[in-house]
Amino acid sequence: MPQESAVLIGMKPQMNYVLACLTAFHEGASEVVIKARGQSISKAVDVAEIVRRKFMPNAFVKEVSIGTDEILLSEGGGTKRISSIMIRLCKK
Amino acid sequence: MPQESAVLIGMKPQMNYVLACLTAFHEGASEVVIKARGQSISKAVDVAEIVRRKFMPNAFVKEVSIGTDEILLSEGGGTKRISSIMIRLCKK
Repeated sequence: MPQESAVLIGMKPQMNYVLACLTAFHEGASEVVIKARGQSISKAVDVAEIVRRKFMPNAFVKEVSIGTDEILLSEGGGTKRISSIMIRLCKK
Repeated sequence: MPQESAVLIGMKPQMNYVLACLTAFHEGASEVVIKARGQSISKAVDVAEIVRRKFMPNAFVKEVSIGTDEILLSEGGGTKRISSIMIRLCKK
């Protein structure tokens, strides 16, 4: 059964997330799913491309999907919509 | 033959690009390809999601792909790598 690992992109420097992806692959994951929301979406694409191009020539992008997440706001109880991306990296 | 139109995301407000997509569909395009590089990638996802969710419930994301573009720098003649995204929106 293929082992899947998830990396959620936040406010840290992009190389932290590149390292998280590489670590997951080296620990045996056959797929790493990179997820991001809002302004971090650009960083998610950078991370996937750096992993694939610089560190793991045997990795490839299997799937990219975009969507909208609804976030519950604590004050007032309204909701906010934010764009999201999911990039599935696999080993050949 | 399906007519394809391209919208390149830049520094303008996101609603300009939403309007460009809607105009292309209303002028008869069956597919609109949204392209962006670097920090504009997040805006490209926002634009696709706004078109699909708010204005055209009959539109759907047919394909998303990511890649790396090499840009020739004018001074020195070196190249710079920048991440890119392509989002293909279609009418049902």
